[in-house]
Formats: sequence, C-alpha cells, structure tokens
Amino acid sequence: MKLLEERIRRDGKVLPGDVLKVDSFVNHQIDVDLMDAAGAEFFRLFGNEGITKILTIEASGIGIACLVARHFHVPVVFAKKLRSSNLAADVYAAEVRSYTHGGTVYQVVVAKDYLRPEDRVLLIDDFLATGEALRGLRELVRQAGATAVGAGIIVEKAYQSGGNDLRSSGLRVESLARVAAMDPESGITFCD
Amino acid sequence: MKLLEERIRRDGKVLPGDVLKVDSFVNHQIDVDLMDAAGAEFFRLFGNEGITKILTIEASGIGIACLVARHFHVPVVFAKKLRSSNLAADVYAAEVRSYTHGGTVYQVVVAKDYLRPEDRVLLIDDFLATGEALRGLRELVRQAGATAVGAGIIVEKAYQSGGNDLRSSGLRVESLARVAAMDPESGITFCD
Repeated sequence: MKLLEERIRRDGKVLPGDVLKVDSFVNHQIDVDLMDAAGAEFFRLFGNEGITKILTIEASGIGIACLVARHFHVPVVFAKKLRSSNLAADVYAAEVRSYTHGGTVYQVVVAKDYLRPEDRVLLIDDFLATGEALRGLRELVRQAGATAVGAGIIVEKAYQSGGNDLRSSGLRVESLARVAAMDPESGITFCD
Repeated sequence: MKLLEERIRRDGKVLPGDVLKVDSFVNHQIDVDLMDAAGAEFFRLFGNEGITKILTIEASGIGIACLVARHFHVPVVFAKKLRSSNLAADVYAAEVRSYTHGGTVYQVVVAKDYLRPEDRVLLIDDFLATGEALRGLRELVRQAGATAVGAGIIVEKAYQSGGNDLRSSGLRVESLARVAAMDPESGITFCD
C-alpha cells in the first residue's frame, strides 16, 4: 500500500537493534483514517473469503483489527496475553515467545465461546517479524477447529523468516508494507 | 442508547461480586457494528466541540476508541499500563488504582509527543465505576496542558460514585448505558 509505505518512510524511525518505531501512527498514537484505509485494502484482498471473525492480540492489534472489521461487518476477538500458566478451563491457550521483550514467554488465550468450529478467521496484527504472534493466533484457531483463512499485517520485516515460513506452511499472509532492509543511517527499503 | 441497553439486558451477565460481564460484545469479543453506532452517538454529543484527539487506556478501550475516532477523523492515543515506577523521561504518567484487580496500583503513561497543549481531548473508555481510570487519563491531559473536553463511556455503574464525582468536578461525562442497579437474581435496571 503506497500510502502506508510513504508514511513509514516519512514518520517511521529506524533505531539501533533492528527497531522500526511507528508509534506516531500505528501503535501508540493511531492514525485512524490511515488504518481505516488499510481495512479497506484487506477487505479488497479477503472480502470474498466468507470471513466470520477477526482475531488479533492485545494491545496494539486491537485498534487496527476493529477498523478492519468494520469493512467486513464481523466481530473482533482479541487474544489476551498472560504471564501465568494458571489458565481457566474455558479458554484456548498457546505459548508465544516475544523477541521484542527479551525472549519472554507468555500465553495468549481466548475464551472458547468466541471461536467456533464454523468460524472462518482472518488474523490481524500490526507487525510480522519472527511470526511468533501469528503462530500463536493460528494455534488458537486450530484448537477451536475453526479455519484460519489468512493473515493481514500492517508492516512485515521481510528480511526475517516469519512471513515466508508461514506462507510455506500454507497460510495466506498479506502485508501492506514489506520492509526489505532498514538501517538507522540509510533508512528503509521496501520489497519490489 | 436504547440499542446498547437492550444488548446488555440480553447478553450481559451479572455475576456475584458486582461484576457485569459484557465480554461477548464489548471487551473480549467486540461487536464492531454496535461500537461503531456508539461512535456515531458520541459524535452527535461531542461533534461540535473541536475535538483534536481521542485518549483511551489499554487494552479494552482501544477498539472502541478507534471506532469512535473514525467519526471524528482524529487520531487515537492509548495510555499504556505499567507496573514499574521506572519511567522514561519523555512520558506523562499518572497513578491508577484498579478495583477490578484487587486494588493493584499501576501507572498509566503517554509519550509527551502525542498530547500537546493545543489538543482538545475526548476521553473514551468501556466502563466507568469508581472513576479511577478516567481520573488518570484526565491527569495526563492536565500534565500536557491540553483540554479534557469530556468523556464518553459505554457502560456506567451509576450506583457507584465515580461518574457523579467527575461531573461535580466539572468534566462532562456522557455514558451510553447507565446501570442504576444490578443483581444476579433480579437482573439489571437502567437509569431513567
């Protein structure tokens, strides 16, 4: 999505340690009109897939997922992150390792009531790098016996293996901006 | 908002310990069309107030705030919750006590870049009971030298003092459903 790439180039900040900071428009302050346009684009890509539910992960996925869901007129479910392994019986749970938080392992959980075998689920998240969060969400869908139709991502670090690993495993992954390379000095290059 | 009251009556669950569970349509699974209608209602109420920004608090406020903000075409900023008191220099911070989490005290923080003195801010949250979260958000706005124009709330427990305390202190608070009383046996009564 050209509009998004231009915005990342203008307002994104590449910091040492492989950090792309987009918190002025994606994940602390949210440019709602831009994310709504992203929602329209995901609807163009997945609108004929019979999506019944959008699944994301707290916290920064929630706003984007809601703006996407508005185009599909389906509910959003957001998985909660828990540090404890002391889980209730009425949830699906998967383990996720966070590389942005120093390798911390946490559980993502969803109440069983909100994912059903008949659901056709679109996964939405702001970032895709190692693919850990998406793998966790996909696992929740699998436990529910539902179908993961695909994933919609705002920014993919395409030089990391997560996206292509997930594609190779059969998941349709659509990323609106794919970063081929980035560097604090030379800035950002997008794929294609 | 009649539509919302009907939905709470139908799908809300009153549990022992003063709990109103609305997580099938507000804060775990989100009925996006209903929250979009709530956004239209807040725009009717605050649309001529020159709002420049919507401020909410993670996690369950974010989706609602984004669906509200779409009607105003302004950015959403969400305050993050931190357990540590080890704060960066570039944030505004306020202390909030969570009664739903056993009296835990946490910090809510916002990067200084995203609240400016010229901002006219609408506060959005899913629940209002003791008013602790709203007071925290209002304090962040005060620290920024910005203006808190008012607060838009989905469900207010009007039998608790938070809402009226905030109104007495001069904040305009608009709640779309105001619960006058509730009980696991007899159900929910709304104000008016």
